[in-house]
Amino acid sequence: MTGGLPMEVPAPGLPARVRIHEVGPRDGLQNEPGVVPTGVKAEFVRRLADAGLDTVEATSFVHPRWVPQLADAEQLFPLVRDLDVRLPVLVPNERGLDRALALGAREVAVFASATESFARANLNRTVDESLAMFEPVVARAKAEGLAVRGYLSMCFGDPWEGPVPVERVVGVARRLADLGCDELSLGDTIGVATPGHVAALLTALGAAGVPASALAVHFHDTYGQALANTFAALQHGVTTVDASAGGLGGCPYAKSATGNLATEDLVWMLHGLGIETGVDLGRLTATSVWLAEELGRPSPSRTVRALSHKE
Amino acid sequence: MTGGLPMEVPAPGLPARVRIHEVGPRDGLQNEPGVVPTGVKAEFVRRLADAGLDTVEATSFVHPRWVPQLADAEQLFPLVRDLDVRLPVLVPNERGLDRALALGAREVAVFASATESFARANLNRTVDESLAMFEPVVARAKAEGLAVRGYLSMCFGDPWEGPVPVERVVGVARRLADLGCDELSLGDTIGVATPGHVAALLTALGAAGVPASALAVHFHDTYGQALANTFAALQHGVTTVDASAGGLGGCPYAKSATGNLATEDLVWMLHGLGIETGVDLGRLTATSVWLAEELGRPSPSRTVRALSHKE
Repeated sequence: MTGGLPMEVPAPGLPARVRIHEVGPRDGLQNEPGVVPTGVKAEFVRRLADAGLDTVEATSFVHPRWVPQLADAEQLFPLVRDLDVRLPVLVPNERGLDRALALGAREVAVFASATESFARANLNRTVDESLAMFEPVVARAKAEGLAVRGYLSMCFGDPWEGPVPVERVVGVARRLADLGCDELSLGDTIGVATPGHVAALLTALGAAGVPASALAVHFHDTYGQALANTFAALQHGVTTVDASAGGLGGCPYAKSATGNLATEDLVWMLHGLGIETGVDLGRLTATSVWLAEELGRPSPSRTVRALSHKE
Repeated sequence: MTGGLPMEVPAPGLPARVRIHEVGPRDGLQNEPGVVPTGVKAEFVRRLADAGLDTVEATSFVHPRWVPQLADAEQLFPLVRDLDVRLPVLVPNERGLDRALALGAREVAVFASATESFARANLNRTVDESLAMFEPVVARAKAEGLAVRGYLSMCFGDPWEGPVPVERVVGVARRLADLGCDELSLGDTIGVATPGHVAALLTALGAAGVPASALAVHFHDTYGQALANTFAALQHGVTTVDASAGGLGGCPYAKSATGNLATEDLVWMLHGLGIETGVDLGRLTATSVWLAEELGRPSPSRTVRALSHKE
């Protein structure tokens, strides 16, 4: 499909393999304006697994009032749970955890904020109150043998507060790790980070006892910085990267553009660096092209556009 | 405009200042489907200078048959030549150099290919023949006291030949440097490079006596890799980066998308890294928004879209 391109040229000091945490079906579809039929969602998750992604965040057990796009979590999860991939689901509280457990979920994620402003806007709580809410969720999930991921949003900048100090993020990250989260995903929710900022945060987290091996990075491409930031994170030992197939959820035509890093753009870079992902880029691109047709608009991923033009 | 964002966090080992070689009026407009009126072009160059860009490639003295978009070089150049910025122009041969000299150009650029296939497609010559054609151009330009840039295209991949070996690029670059070019711009014309490939090429060029200080990088965002590649180039000592205001010439809606790196996306990263550019990002973005209106289509730059949505 790409004439042997990208040419594989490793760079020193990078990992041999990166795990991509695919967030398209959850973070992507949650930020799309329309509601996608449950059957299409299930097909999407299946195709992502077929493309070689080994972790696909499937849905969210948030109250449907807040995220109507994912109100069908109970119907969707049974359609995909037998796939041979990791299928984490988002749970906001104990009620969400109950629903996920009842359906047989084996991995869950909680969603915290590094800033007070976003904690209030998104969770209607202070940071302290939200961590108190997560404490029993994480404890019960761990007791049930589930893997738990902690999302930490607004790790670099916040729309209300501006730049977010590194120490602030380290403090909340340390507390999420202490609750028992197996992995923390550092979110650049508004896409303002640059590579030096990424390096500084990862260095500070390492010094505070949260090593790169326990971290994932979750960059948004709002200002086009996501891949440069990812490269800096790889240079600092990170081996798990979040991305959204086709850049889903990052619709460049909507004012609400969040600009998720497209999995295809990430895979292009990783494969060019000779880093193994297990992903078949052609199949993944075909999946995003298919979903874009279902959604009725083109994918914002540059790689999807370039490869699908060539087809 | 951006609430103090991006936060400035330098990364170790990067330059304190980067010179941006703005290619929008030449490389950008040359690859747009329509022909822009001369007055709009002159206003574009003026606005870019006002935004703090100190090098603006103004036009091309290629035969109008090949590049009708820039057929007005003789009319345009006198409208901008008194601006207090560097205004290089592309000259393909001695005839082009004559035209540029007659108008008072102080800097010129020649355009070579690292691959035989593209030399034939673009210049209708072998690589040897094209270098022979440039030899008297560079010699006369130097004798007239002009600065000379050598573009070297297809440095990473070629649409006909696939991956381009590093040694091949080093060989042609060495010959261009020997002709007397003051600066070589390494072009990833089809956008396939990844950061390890960039590092390998820069290292090999350094070993062959072409140091980073004599180089510029010219990345295309076809697969979204341009900024990650730029970051890798900065880590290897490069301090001159080519970019196109608003991503001009990289129309994502056209099959011919070449995907120039948008100057705004580059400036966002450089300023975030605490690297001086002299550019006022707000003014630059306003310029790209203005030009996009003139062209009748939105800018493909993520930074332009994000900042103009906020206005």
